[in-house]
Amino acid sequence: MNVLEYLKDHPVVLASGSPRRKELLAQIGIFPQIVPSGASEDTRETQPDRMVMELARRKALDVAGGCRAGTLVIGADTVVSVDGEILGKPGTPERAAGMIRRISGGSHQVYTGVALILCLEGGRTREYAFAEKTDVHVYPMDEDEIRAYAESGEPLDKAGGYGIQGRFAAYIRGIDGDYGNVVGLPLGRLCHAVKEFLG
Amino acid sequence: MNVLEYLKDHPVVLASGSPRRKELLAQIGIFPQIVPSGASEDTRETQPDRMVMELARRKALDVAGGCRAGTLVIGADTVVSVDGEILGKPGTPERAAGMIRRISGGSHQVYTGVALILCLEGGRTREYAFAEKTDVHVYPMDEDEIRAYAESGEPLDKAGGYGIQGRFAAYIRGIDGDYGNVVGLPLGRLCHAVKEFLG
Repeated sequence: MNVLEYLKDHPVVLASGSPRRKELLAQIGIFPQIVPSGASEDTRETQPDRMVMELARRKALDVAGGCRAGTLVIGADTVVSVDGEILGKPGTPERAAGMIRRISGGSHQVYTGVALILCLEGGRTREYAFAEKTDVHVYPMDEDEIRAYAESGEPLDKAGGYGIQGRFAAYIRGIDGDYGNVVGLPLGRLCHAVKEFLG
Repeated sequence: MNVLEYLKDHPVVLASGSPRRKELLAQIGIFPQIVPSGASEDTRETQPDRMVMELARRKALDVAGGCRAGTLVIGADTVVSVDGEILGKPGTPERAAGMIRRISGGSHQVYTGVALILCLEGGRTREYAFAEKTDVHVYPMDEDEIRAYAESGEPLDKAGGYGIQGRFAAYIRGIDGDYGNVVGLPLGRLCHAVKEFLG
């Protein structure tokens, strides 16, 4: 099965307003309909892999209601975990600086959960979900580098307070795992999962 | 030392015509003067790390002659190595398909060599060079996926016959190391090296 051909020839809905997820899919030639989910992101789950799968599934289900048979809905959620603590989006430069101090000079984990929902006749659906982990290793940063980056505007809307696809790449020693997973969508695992799910 | 500020405030020359290296530097806010080197890429060296350092140094030296004091010249060269064999740029879809078959379902190594030349007064220079390795793991691909990708035009000018920053991301299981290194320039190691070299 040629997954890229399949995804080009069938309706795909991305249940996320993230411009980065849209760009990642565009990179492999997939141009989905974008339907941002309004689902709540509140959860009691504290295990990052289970948390991102739960939220990804919630987003996909929120959008899948009443969709046309044959449509594939993709939901996704990404968090950063360091020493067992989950870092969300900082929102302010001060909180961003705190997060960058936490990850400077060490390793942390990025988890993206992906939920696939295939819409069938009669309102039925088939589901598939997974979580993908990538380890990220960061060089030690000087305090003025941390402050300058925190104030650059780049961190505010990004889990963990950094964008590996932006200026923060200057401080990355390396990763173990999928690069797109750190940006917000693991393209390789996603295509592999679609193959397993639909092939 | 804030390397990004330093590189923004000093003259930087990139001795490479690769649009991908230029884009990687732009990602971290560096906009160098582009001076593609005409240096020969012939070499007897067969060890990939030594080969890319030799060619990177040759490119940088070719361009550094007569440059203004304070200018930093960056040369770079990238190769793909699989089971001890070096894969260059395929040039034709047929050779691209052969390379993709070699890397499908397994792991290979990408080496980028980087040479830094700082131009001093009186035509003197200071040099620094390193090679960075990234392991790349590829999902097994079907023969029609290999052919479709080989014929997409994307592989022709890329070492190893693929672009991780393009459609081939759909087939990547993961990497160990720097992502930019696979694209053509290890941004994190480069900034770290500039810090060591000039700091």
